[in-house]
Amino acid sequence: MRIARSIQKLTPYTPGEQPKDSHVVKLNTNENPYPPSPRVAQTLSAFDLDKLRRYPDPVFAELRAKLASIHGTTPDRIFIGNGSDEVLTLAARVFVDDGEAIGAFDPSYSLYKTLAAIRNVPFVPTPLAGDFTWSEPECIGEAADTTVPVALFLLTNPNAPTSISHPQDKIASFARKFPGVVLIDEAYADFADGNCVSLATAAENPNVVVMRTLSKSFSLAGLRLGYCIGPVDLIDALYKAKDSYNIDALAQALALAALDDLPWMTGNTKKVRATRTRIAGELRRRGWDVPDSQTNFLFARPPSNNAADIFEDLRTRHIYVRYFPGPRTGERLRITIGTDAEMDEFLSAIDSLA
Amino acid sequence: MRIARSIQKLTPYTPGEQPKDSHVVKLNTNENPYPPSPRVAQTLSAFDLDKLRRYPDPVFAELRAKLASIHGTTPDRIFIGNGSDEVLTLAARVFVDDGEAIGAFDPSYSLYKTLAAIRNVPFVPTPLAGDFTWSEPECIGEAADTTVPVALFLLTNPNAPTSISHPQDKIASFARKFPGVVLIDEAYADFADGNCVSLATAAENPNVVVMRTLSKSFSLAGLRLGYCIGPVDLIDALYKAKDSYNIDALAQALALAALDDLPWMTGNTKKVRATRTRIAGELRRRGWDVPDSQTNFLFARPPSNNAADIFEDLRTRHIYVRYFPGPRTGERLRITIGTDAEMDEFLSAIDSLA
Repeated sequence: MRIARSIQKLTPYTPGEQPKDSHVVKLNTNENPYPPSPRVAQTLSAFDLDKLRRYPDPVFAELRAKLASIHGTTPDRIFIGNGSDEVLTLAARVFVDDGEAIGAFDPSYSLYKTLAAIRNVPFVPTPLAGDFTWSEPECIGEAADTTVPVALFLLTNPNAPTSISHPQDKIASFARKFPGVVLIDEAYADFADGNCVSLATAAENPNVVVMRTLSKSFSLAGLRLGYCIGPVDLIDALYKAKDSYNIDALAQALALAALDDLPWMTGNTKKVRATRTRIAGELRRRGWDVPDSQTNFLFARPPSNNAADIFEDLRTRHIYVRYFPGPRTGERLRITIGTDAEMDEFLSAIDSLA
Repeated sequence: MRIARSIQKLTPYTPGEQPKDSHVVKLNTNENPYPPSPRVAQTLSAFDLDKLRRYPDPVFAELRAKLASIHGTTPDRIFIGNGSDEVLTLAARVFVDDGEAIGAFDPSYSLYKTLAAIRNVPFVPTPLAGDFTWSEPECIGEAADTTVPVALFLLTNPNAPTSISHPQDKIASFARKFPGVVLIDEAYADFADGNCVSLATAAENPNVVVMRTLSKSFSLAGLRLGYCIGPVDLIDALYKAKDSYNIDALAQALALAALDDLPWMTGNTKKVRATRTRIAGELRRRGWDVPDSQTNFLFARPPSNNAADIFEDLRTRHIYVRYFPGPRTGERLRITIGTDAEMDEFLSAIDSLA
């Protein structure tokens, strides 16, 4: 048996399509429609290539210090991964023992279930309420003939693909009761009205980790830079288990440049939020059900109840949105907020399909 | 218990020191003293920053095709990691089941033991013969009250830190008998007289994977690009378990540029080999024991038998080499081959210490 049983039976996560054709309206993977800060371009063109000859800083001291100052905390509370994906993979390794389980809401980021399968531990989903709002997480799962405790709860907030924010007091009170680690995946927090960073930096919270990414709000999905903030002992454990040099020298330099220009990022998120409000209104006027989004996408149900057909029709017109088959998610489309021009193309296409 | 027991008791791998001071002779982490190909610089300055806004190609099609053509094989036999480290971490996840073990020679790359600890499986070292040459690997380890089979044997060739190549026929005959996966870590193969790629591409070998890195011969340690070649089913298993977008868009583009200029790489390895021959001779003339190196470093024992003292003395003179404490490795220094000028500084320092 050359391949581990858990991997043999694994159904891998399918990322959204990255069409080769550049003449498409790409609203399927929650990328930012606006470019990264000009400081990223400046840093790239001034980069000393001799730095690539040497190994990068294994603990990215400068970048950690920058992130710590942005979030009003100390560098020993910051861990950085090769995208949030690496932080999640390490969390599954580090915060979950054999014989324990990983929990998450359903629907949520569909990668979580795959992560549990790769880690070879049970996945315990908690169905969200009918309107995709909070319901108290299940914390015991089943494995073989026995029950296993959930050691890590992965909580996307604002949630994807639903676009809705959970109330902070619900999250805080759940974390107080939960004996394991609550990892709050705030990939979309820069598009929201609030965030949970204070839960992760508070000295009295021993089990809350908040994760961020530069992929969405900072327009750097191609760079692979995610990080998390949390109690020192949990952060230390991630460092112990990571690959020696997990963030390359260029990514460290370019991320620093992007983080040096927060007004650029907030300017872009403001534009995305304005477009989001406009498009949610336009879809509602057309009879779509559109929850209030706190993200850079909408999770919208067409009045005709044929989301899968619309997904395919749009695709033939080179407009890509995301469709998640399934009893609840399959009623809806996840539509990334693009530029106003892209969204107008999307609306025209919707109208011509109707 | 918020941190897995295996991680709590883990002693993490310590990478070689990366001194902040740039006025040092850095011979401690096997970096290449010569810069990467000018094509890397050209690609960097021409890079379209809008590519960073989008997610990178999750299966790096162009880079795989390039590597396949270089090695005379097909892209479905190529996997690429965020440095060889990531390939190793995934191999430990994918080729080893709970209840199995990881094997390697001793001494060899000291990370391997840490990898097994992170994977929470036993590590089974096989001591090399007295002169660091081949000895037949042990394939059964012990765990608790029982014995466990080695499912993955990590075989650095040429070996580090010993600098010696194992005979190809020994490796081939071991792989034929071994029921698990033999991963041949060829980080230094471009500095050697031969390599084992044909073992990994041969249709009749179902269990041999050969790994390479751009860190050493291509002068790109700062970029984090490792890859492996092997049977399609093993390569597929690595893809199933990897993070969705593990190689960033810039790394994909720059690696492609470096691989487009093989003569630059071989020109540099030729220079390193010439310097290696010269310095091995100089050290031997001074009474040092220096095995014939097939890598970009020497593993040398001083006649005074005080390797640890020399390591410290060199360090105070801002000359960094690597020292691995221990019963056999502790007798020697691992000295990276730098430029001729750097090596002359090293020799002068040795002479003034004597």
